[in-house]
Amino acid sequence: MSAPTVRSRGAHALVVRDDGVEDAVAVEEPLEIRVGGRPLSVTMRTPGHDDELALGLLYGEALIDAPCPVDVAPGLAANTVDLDARLRVLPAARSFHATSSCGVCGKGALEDVAVTVSPLDPAEGPLVPRSTLAALPDRLVQPTFERTGGLHAAGLFDALGEPLVVREDVGRHNALDKVVGRALLDGMLPLAEAIVCVSGRVSFELVQKAARAGAPILVAVGAPSSLAVALAAEQGITLCGFARAGTTNVYTHAERVA
Amino acid sequence: MSAPTVRSRGAHALVVRDDGVEDAVAVEEPLEIRVGGRPLSVTMRTPGHDDELALGLLYGEALIDAPCPVDVAPGLAANTVDLDARLRVLPAARSFHATSSCGVCGKGALEDVAVTVSPLDPAEGPLVPRSTLAALPDRLVQPTFERTGGLHAAGLFDALGEPLVVREDVGRHNALDKVVGRALLDGMLPLAEAIVCVSGRVSFELVQKAARAGAPILVAVGAPSSLAVALAAEQGITLCGFARAGTTNVYTHAERVA
Repeated sequence: MSAPTVRSRGAHALVVRDDGVEDAVAVEEPLEIRVGGRPLSVTMRTPGHDDELALGLLYGEALIDAPCPVDVAPGLAANTVDLDARLRVLPAARSFHATSSCGVCGKGALEDVAVTVSPLDPAEGPLVPRSTLAALPDRLVQPTFERTGGLHAAGLFDALGEPLVVREDVGRHNALDKVVGRALLDGMLPLAEAIVCVSGRVSFELVQKAARAGAPILVAVGAPSSLAVALAAEQGITLCGFARAGTTNVYTHAERVA
Repeated sequence: MSAPTVRSRGAHALVVRDDGVEDAVAVEEPLEIRVGGRPLSVTMRTPGHDDELALGLLYGEALIDAPCPVDVAPGLAANTVDLDARLRVLPAARSFHATSSCGVCGKGALEDVAVTVSPLDPAEGPLVPRSTLAALPDRLVQPTFERTGGLHAAGLFDALGEPLVVREDVGRHNALDKVVGRALLDGMLPLAEAIVCVSGRVSFELVQKAARAGAPILVAVGAPSSLAVALAAEQGITLCGFARAGTTNVYTHAERVA
């Protein structure tokens, strides 16, 4: 018995399974995020768009409000990015940490879990037909998922349902962080008129990231949690779940659904 | 527009959606884990079996090796547990944090992500027919998932495929932590002969938790990541993925599959 050969091809890797079959799997690798050379966070992620991931993660945590230079120079290890940023608030004590599936790391107590964001006005934002919202998951093109079955996706769409940015990652949080990071780089934040769509279920943390990005509508292929529904209601976000087969449930703020 | 009523029923809550329909969603709430009264971690989880969750999480992080008293007395807030434990190692600096979907929180750098566990001998452990492994997901009884579509499950099975413990949670890590916590309380660790089955995909962190619990076989309904395959190979764990429709892929250590 020998260890399987894992040959990375970027977002996916080829593995010779122990039953002899060559198979494609989603790549998961740690990324260390540094700020000014100082380690801040380690996240497990699918390589690619690492600058967007780091920017989106720090924006979501309300540590930055604007893009900053991201150093991915050969001088650093391949799995390290260094941001030249002045943080809005200092992360408490040492550092905060995240994984491929983690969104509230580095918070010290129950009351610190939430990032404070002003609620949106439910009377503002786009008015979108339910059928357009229900069709968004089909437009989350997922090349690596189709190959591996192992990636989440997040996308940003305009009010007509046209895709603006789509990103994949082993972690659903990372996929959304990459989308938000891209939007930050492109000067699109706060989103105001755009729709965020995610491939999996919706937890508290995903609603928090959408709220911080100013997204008025959040659509998920899967189920929402109780806290996701409560936070979306409080933040003035239209939350849709189980978007599939031509329809979707609308949990909160149906004013934006035609 | 008013906020939706969220009425908790334990693992699920009833929500009146903004389109007027009453719907069941999985409950997600923060749990603060304290050790000797001192806050250690906040995790987003589905209430229930909180003592198992706390014990399993700390065991997985190699902070404890044995069960300890867990205080869930009325004197504490409903979402707090306090462990009377002496930690094997002190978590660096302040505290470590976890979420419903996070398994490597609180680690400071790339080399610190992994918990050191001695590898299993691939020649040891049960020999299980592939059809038995493939049938395990059907035996992960998920009452709240069936109601909400929003929970992960993890289970412990004997070599004949009989369920020993099954737990549900919004976070796949939490579900496994609860199973490990139960096994710790019942004196079943290290597992040696038992099989772990999880409802979703397999990331690095889930393999790490299985390795720490001494599980020789890990079966997942979904896809493994590249790092999950690499770690399972290194730790002597038989890793199966895409267990469905009567068959399963075997990624590593097929010696245990008949």
